[in-house]
Amino acid sequence: MTRELSSKDYSPGIRWDRRCLRLLDQRYLPRELKYVECSTAVQVASAIRDMVIRGAPAIGIAAAYAVALGVRQHAELPTELRLRALARDLDTLRKARPTAVNLAWALDRLQPLAESGKPFPELAAAAERIHYMDVVANQQMAQLGSELIGAESRLLTHCNTGPLATGGIGTAFGVVTAAWRQKKVAEVRFTETRPWAQGARLTAWEFSREDVPAILMTDLAAAGLTLSGGVDWLIVGADRIAANGDVINKIGTAPLAALTAQSGGRVMVVAPWSTVDLSLATGEEVAIEVRDGEELWRPLGIDVAPDGIKVSNPVFDVTPAKFVDVIVTQRGINYPSRGERLTALDDSGE
Amino acid sequence: MTRELSSKDYSPGIRWDRRCLRLLDQRYLPRELKYVECSTAVQVASAIRDMVIRGAPAIGIAAAYAVALGVRQHAELPTELRLRALARDLDTLRKARPTAVNLAWALDRLQPLAESGKPFPELAAAAERIHYMDVVANQQMAQLGSELIGAESRLLTHCNTGPLATGGIGTAFGVVTAAWRQKKVAEVRFTETRPWAQGARLTAWEFSREDVPAILMTDLAAAGLTLSGGVDWLIVGADRIAANGDVINKIGTAPLAALTAQSGGRVMVVAPWSTVDLSLATGEEVAIEVRDGEELWRPLGIDVAPDGIKVSNPVFDVTPAKFVDVIVTQRGINYPSRGERLTALDDSGE
Repeated sequence: MTRELSSKDYSPGIRWDRRCLRLLDQRYLPRELKYVECSTAVQVASAIRDMVIRGAPAIGIAAAYAVALGVRQHAELPTELRLRALARDLDTLRKARPTAVNLAWALDRLQPLAESGKPFPELAAAAERIHYMDVVANQQMAQLGSELIGAESRLLTHCNTGPLATGGIGTAFGVVTAAWRQKKVAEVRFTETRPWAQGARLTAWEFSREDVPAILMTDLAAAGLTLSGGVDWLIVGADRIAANGDVINKIGTAPLAALTAQSGGRVMVVAPWSTVDLSLATGEEVAIEVRDGEELWRPLGIDVAPDGIKVSNPVFDVTPAKFVDVIVTQRGINYPSRGERLTALDDSGE
Repeated sequence: MTRELSSKDYSPGIRWDRRCLRLLDQRYLPRELKYVECSTAVQVASAIRDMVIRGAPAIGIAAAYAVALGVRQHAELPTELRLRALARDLDTLRKARPTAVNLAWALDRLQPLAESGKPFPELAAAAERIHYMDVVANQQMAQLGSELIGAESRLLTHCNTGPLATGGIGTAFGVVTAAWRQKKVAEVRFTETRPWAQGARLTAWEFSREDVPAILMTDLAAAGLTLSGGVDWLIVGADRIAANGDVINKIGTAPLAALTAQSGGRVMVVAPWSTVDLSLATGEEVAIEVRDGEELWRPLGIDVAPDGIKVSNPVFDVTPAKFVDVIVTQRGINYPSRGERLTALDDSGE
């Protein structure tokens, strides 16, 4: 990065001042802008589990700050009790959301510092560095990804991958808005993203803030558009990426990618390197989170479906590498559909 | 049909007693069961346009009753004024929903009777016959379609095609419930069907009434299931079928069918013969209805997306015949994916 970062490059979703962590409550966006204040690790874990904050990179950053908060909370305890309390905090954080690898990645980085008794300011600085590096990574990915996009491209994105899902300007969303600013985009469409409406509520809000006149569609209307060849690039984020390039991401990514790939479009996955899990040979090894059916039959707190209806609500799926043309991380571009195993091309970063 | 029909074979959505037409208001199901009473053709047209009643066969039946109501309303007018009033009614009805061909089909059948000055009881009897024949057709299709389904099949249906969408036990829904009763079904899944939630609200209500333990999924979760080979039969209705077997149906049918077909599953379309429009060579000739974006950004009357968001809300799509294994009508079974032009195999019916 050649220029200095400004506060505009940081997400409005995560506010940190070493006193507490304030998380923009994404359950109420865009109707209400209110922050949830967390001063303990357990409060942050609850916020992650209850989806006050979501998006794999954002969850990782929040978890890093949570460890710092835990260290501060337990600082006065005798060593053994302190270590036990920290272990409980880390365990609670680790279980808050099972699929995103960034959560575990951030905890693994902070855990040794916490266990070795480093004081709060040092933990806080380490968490801030994780946040800062995500902001920088977002900028790098936006630049790398947008360079791949040709003139007059018709773009589709799914779920929410913007500032709210990350520490900075976003992953897939950052690429889309960068390409838009470079005037290479004929149109931008985005999905509603049921059941949680990350698209209709959050991505819509982010596109409004960026003055990008993006078009909202239902999930299957967007799928139909890809089938009929109306999408040049499907651009999405990831919650976890296996060594072979299989991508675990928001439910619906796999069918959207399959339809795009078979209809002449291309599929771009944009995610920080911390999303890549080289310990996974393929995506089939990941346990997919299944959330409560209430998200379907009781959207917006209103009973929609009749009582007692059975629901299956998986919230992620596995997109086979064969449908993924490029994976953009801050370390470079990989081409999974060519059968290449993922590698970090630029090892200078974190 | 060998047995007498009972009131149970008739849809609860359409109540007719020659005094008025009462339509179960599907906008409020399943939270409220209330009927809208119509005593004029214009009231029925409004009910169709505002989606008090929807589903191609049900719309056709309601339109037939509407013509009878119009004849009664204008009976005392001098001939010229009466014909002009009837023409206005027919025009209003014809424009109420543009895509379903059953609406135009029913009007074409009643129009000559109305214009030739036949009295109300004769029009009422003609409309009742259209309703009765739909009930019979539903039974015939349920029998024909369910015979195609093998043991332990995993079924998926989309949108709403049950009693609420028809005059009787339903089209695709009738096949699914018949196969379930024949104990040939390992599991039944159905989609939420955004933006109007015909699945989560209406099909869920119908499966509950029939004691079928069907499983609700988001639209793209169901699409992902088809991609991964988890669906043996996708069974859907149709709003219009072209001569080559292209199927115009609820938005999302095309991607679901494409994914099912390419993943080893089969696609069955179930619709009365009146849905077939042999004047259309292919589905590409149909103008697809695009409804107001409010259905997306204001579901359940609550603002979800931020103000001023752009929306594209097509409500139907065209499934190419190559993805359609069988089309079941009351006149027999056609095999569009083999390249056959649609034909009525049994000409004894209506």
